Amino acid sequence: MEGMTFVLFGATGDLAQRKLFPALYNLYLDEKLPETMSIIGLGRRNYSDKVFQEKVEQALYAYSRRTVQSGSLPDFLKKFRYCIFDATEKEAYRQLHELVEKRENELDIPQNRLFYLSVAPRLIDVIASGLYTSGITQGKGWKRLIVEKPFGRNLETARALNQNLRKVFNEDEIYRIDHYLGKPMVQNLRTLVLANPVLGSLLNHEEISNVQITASETVGVESRADYYDQAGAVRDMVQNHLLQLVMMTAIHLPDSLTGNNSGIKKTDIIESLQPILKEHAHRTIVRGQYEPGEIEGAPVAGYREEPGVDELSKNDTYFAARIAIDHPSWKGIPFYIRTGKRMNAKSTQIVIEFENKAMDTRGLQGTSPNLVMLEISPNESISLRINLKDASNNRFNPVWTSLSSNSKDQPEAYELLLYDALRGNSTFFADWQEVELSWNWIQPVLEAFNEDLLPLHFYPAGSRGPIVANELLTADQYKWW
Amino acid sequence: MEGMTFVLFGATGDLAQRKLFPALYNLYLDEKLPETMSIIGLGRRNYSDKVFQEKVEQALYAYSRRTVQSGSLPDFLKKFRYCIFDATEKEAYRQLHELVEKRENELDIPQNRLFYLSVAPRLIDVIASGLYTSGITQGKGWKRLIVEKPFGRNLETARALNQNLRKVFNEDEIYRIDHYLGKPMVQNLRTLVLANPVLGSLLNHEEISNVQITASETVGVESRADYYDQAGAVRDMVQNHLLQLVMMTAIHLPDSLTGNNSGIKKTDIIESLQPILKEHAHRTIVRGQYEPGEIEGAPVAGYREEPGVDELSKNDTYFAARIAIDHPSWKGIPFYIRTGKRMNAKSTQIVIEFENKAMDTRGLQGTSPNLVMLEISPNESISLRINLKDASNNRFNPVWTSLSSNSKDQPEAYELLLYDALRGNSTFFADWQEVELSWNWIQPVLEAFNEDLLPLHFYPAGSRGPIVANELLTADQYKWW
Repeated sequence: MEGMTFVLFGATGDLAQRKLFPALYNLYLDEKLPETMSIIGLGRRNYSDKVFQEKVEQALYAYSRRTVQSGSLPDFLKKFRYCIFDATEKEAYRQLHELVEKRENELDIPQNRLFYLSVAPRLIDVIASGLYTSGITQGKGWKRLIVEKPFGRNLETARALNQNLRKVFNEDEIYRIDHYLGKPMVQNLRTLVLANPVLGSLLNHEEISNVQITASETVGVESRADYYDQAGAVRDMVQNHLLQLVMMTAIHLPDSLTGNNSGIKKTDIIESLQPILKEHAHRTIVRGQYEPGEIEGAPVAGYREEPGVDELSKNDTYFAARIAIDHPSWKGIPFYIRTGKRMNAKSTQIVIEFENKAMDTRGLQGTSPNLVMLEISPNESISLRINLKDASNNRFNPVWTSLSSNSKDQPEAYELLLYDALRGNSTFFADWQEVELSWNWIQPVLEAFNEDLLPLHFYPAGSRGPIVANELLTADQYKWW
Repeated sequence: MEGMTFVLFGATGDLAQRKLFPALYNLYLDEKLPETMSIIGLGRRNYSDKVFQEKVEQALYAYSRRTVQSGSLPDFLKKFRYCIFDATEKEAYRQLHELVEKRENELDIPQNRLFYLSVAPRLIDVIASGLYTSGITQGKGWKRLIVEKPFGRNLETARALNQNLRKVFNEDEIYRIDHYLGKPMVQNLRTLVLANPVLGSLLNHEEISNVQITASETVGVESRADYYDQAGAVRDMVQNHLLQLVMMTAIHLPDSLTGNNSGIKKTDIIESLQPILKEHAHRTIVRGQYEPGEIEGAPVAGYREEPGVDELSKNDTYFAARIAIDHPSWKGIPFYIRTGKRMNAKSTQIVIEFENKAMDTRGLQGTSPNLVMLEISPNESISLRINLKDASNNRFNPVWTSLSSNSKDQPEAYELLLYDALRGNSTFFADWQEVELSWNWIQPVLEAFNEDLLPLHFYPAGSRGPIVANELLTADQYKWW
């Protein structure tokens, strides 16, 4: 890989310490970084290069997936430089430009520049235009921009943000991170199906009755109330992560019509989602908010009592929906999605439920539907639930069997995504069309929430969410797994 | 279940002790015997009822799958009576008839009579006509005949035997035992596929490249040389067991054409086997015989050195074949079968190999074909071999995953078969058409062996059989698994 400069805005922030430095380090251990690489961290604090390198080192000891190897550590750390930065100061961009060029000359690397924006949303287009004005984006090599979520807070602001970014970067230079797309299980689904024709047959739509996607957390709003109380689960989780999982699932399960899945694009799926009318949102959407409750036996506060949250807040900490996909491949197969904070378990998973034809066959009434569960986090696994005969009473019982190895050594999402961005592979990033169509689909829901057109259901912290969310499925004769 | 009489010819023989008494006892423990049942054992030895009951008891302690429960044992044993019997003496049938009627009167049970012939093949039609002459088969209840293998020793003798039996019993009263059809894995295959639509998709022919059926033993000819040296593997294992497994596999894997398997009968399959010309038998058949070798580190004799075996015997102790099924459902999917004595492992299994489309896909070259293995004995299991990505080197490795529970408490084949016969369910018995068509297909092979039209390949005891058997598959680009 050619040499490059990695410019990290927000280098003193939480994401940098927890995810980005460890990801870079593990790529380094795997020899997946360019041989010569300049990494420049930006922040408002006044660090020296040495202090910054010490912060990076501390982050590795605290969060690296693999043990820090002290012998080679200096070689890794010496790539890092620090630059104090105020996004609203023109002079800051000039200094940055100077430092980038200085390091390029010192290290003899081409003007390949990657800008990673791990900053407050309001700063994204400020920085983009600051970069443009400074001339730093007009080097002789390639340029790329990585943007973290949220990408806008509704259809209009997302479009405006994108227009501003597009003044500086082409669409193929913009890498919108959705770290759910970096999860190994999500990334491997396609190759796993390709590598195993039998799984292709097994996962064929023809036998699927419905798909259920769950992303539940046990944590509450934590210290992010100022952001979260304005965003809600719908912006924090649904518009981006859950809709991306819907798209990924829908395109990577083999198609019964064509026998493969090469034809369908993610945008085909998101475009085919049955639109929601805000007046009818209550029929297919459940919004919820957690009340005081218990997590692992300890009492926890309700959402409205959390520091920084309005005590009359109607913000959604839970969201569930029934989604119909008007695409020939997925006609009649509902997708159910749900996400919530302060739930009873931390888990992200996709459950594929198959038609239970056996149920009506004489002697097989005890059988349950076959399920395939793709567990995305905290563990990565694929399991199949089949009905096995119990020899002792001649009855069928559902039994889970694992279809995956217990590989503990999976790379983290940010490793995979950063590596792709370094190589210029944007497959697992959200492209603008996907983002725009997702906002477009979710927009009536935002309005329905805003205009209070559907009830806010309260659920105790530590529970499975509002009981009424079950009705989304019982209407179709299904249940959450 | 109505009361009945169970008349066992060969009650002092090995099969009775090892399999039949234990099977009856385990059915008794499961409350699957009729409430009143008269069991009459016949043999040439001069036993009293008491001695016979003691023999039964000893057999249970030695061979019962479940622990003998001494409390209820007398209640089980009291069903048994003994009758000395010489199959060639008319008087013996009269005495048997008298005893059967006496017990029917004592126990107040209807004249439902089941005759189980566990005797030398030459006695089968002798006994059948003796029964007829005595009038014992003309009672007011139902009558049934259970016959053990071998059923004839070629097409002609099988037909003659059947004609003789049919003078006394209707086809639906004749239960030809093939104990491979009693194995739980074979019996459950259909319901397992019915109970699990995903397995139906997975096992769909469309993706199958070939099927391999292996029944290998580590034992040699043991004490059965006088029978075996005349029969060979082809009669002892292939004409009956292996061809039945071919039929069962072919009808129970779901059909890609119709989406189910309800249409195909076993006779459809056996009728569709591509006929063998004896002059061409060497192209698709391998016959072998074991030489001296080692089993588990201990030297063992070659077949020709076994007691009772002709020292120039050309008898087959190994048989392998490539079978083509000219049926629309199985066109182009070869079945390979093999069986042998003194092999390296004791195992009966069916391996279904799937097309490896992935092999040619970029980045997936390391993948192996997906396999499903149905292990029939000594353990019962279904496993799936899939390709999983090794996170450490990003390569695919084939990994076996179990699709069955580790149920140790499976009923034995004879329990299932006897229970079916008691209930009058002949599903898992070989019907005459199947037997006749099997002999018909195998007849040219018998002649080719007899006329020495194909080579006898020697293999060392404890090996995988003649190496030349690999060529049956390599010609099609496959290999034995």
